[in-house]
Amino acid sequence: MRILGIDPGSVVTGFGVVEKTGNKFSLVEYGVIEAKREYSSLEHRLKIIYERLQQVILRTTPDEAALELLFFFKNPQSLLKLSHARGVAMLSAATSNLPISEYSALEIKKSVTGKGRASKEQVQYMVKSMLSIKENPSFFDATDALAIAICHGLKSNAPESSSRSWKDFVAQNPDRIKKFSP
Amino acid sequence: MRILGIDPGSVVTGFGVVEKTGNKFSLVEYGVIEAKREYSSLEHRLKIIYERLQQVILRTTPDEAALELLFFFKNPQSLLKLSHARGVAMLSAATSNLPISEYSALEIKKSVTGKGRASKEQVQYMVKSMLSIKENPSFFDATDALAIAICHGLKSNAPESSSRSWKDFVAQNPDRIKKFSP
Repeated sequence: MRILGIDPGSVVTGFGVVEKTGNKFSLVEYGVIEAKREYSSLEHRLKIIYERLQQVILRTTPDEAALELLFFFKNPQSLLKLSHARGVAMLSAATSNLPISEYSALEIKKSVTGKGRASKEQVQYMVKSMLSIKENPSFFDATDALAIAICHGLKSNAPESSSRSWKDFVAQNPDRIKKFSP
Repeated sequence: MRILGIDPGSVVTGFGVVEKTGNKFSLVEYGVIEAKREYSSLEHRLKIIYERLQQVILRTTPDEAALELLFFFKNPQSLLKLSHARGVAMLSAATSNLPISEYSALEIKKSVTGKGRASKEQVQYMVKSMLSIKENPSFFDATDALAIAICHGLKSNAPESSSRSWKDFVAQNPDRIKKFSP
């Protein structure tokens, strides 16, 4: 299973794609979209985020996407801009028909480092080690996105070719069907 | 000038397109996108909002777009969902290269009814009267979107064929150029 993790932001959006084979993870691609560097207006930044994420999805063909659940910042204005970017990130995944899962920051940190209160440096250290990344990524947004993808890989017990409908499940598990007579 | 007003929401998104000719407004189209009626998941609703707005823009070919500025609701969870939808609405306008203007609720109400504290019914009454709409729209979201478009038309003193660059302005207004010699 190939997973796209996204850490959206109106200034910097991080993304990371990992391949899960059995219980092992390998790196496909990671990077950041520095929308603010190119445009000051929010609408143009949203356009850049959308277009670049579409390119990432086309290039890396993930099966699923994962995002961090929103929590409440101290600065409401930042939260609103972040939500605009997050809406566009969700749309990117949805237009490519990727199922989206969401995890809290605590769940993500805990699944990657074992500690819910791990620092960004500790998350980066574990992500680098799990994916054998040699260089130091310039943005935590990129390693955070990889951490989100790894968290989804660890949490989802989906088999390699996942079955999402009850119909598929029933077809694949005939022994688990109980028949009720009225 | 043709203006698209959008009143985004993750449950109901209102839209309205008006044509401004001189100081007069005429109705082009209005309606609502009831995303929640079709999908429960936020990402699928965002997809519906994006696709429908793209269709409205293609069909009605507006020159500019206008949105209400966000204010802080009592329920932060609603505000976050609204911001996701608003990001997608902005993206719709941006991908079609429509300039976006934003106005506060007070500005919109004041420009349409003369009163900053007008009720939704009063806004609807004025919008219906200005655009000669006979029926009662089922959603305030639709008349609110039309009010946003009218507000932009009243606030922007753009000529019929607007010139957006200094180069165009200089070419069209040779008498307004002052020459400075160093």
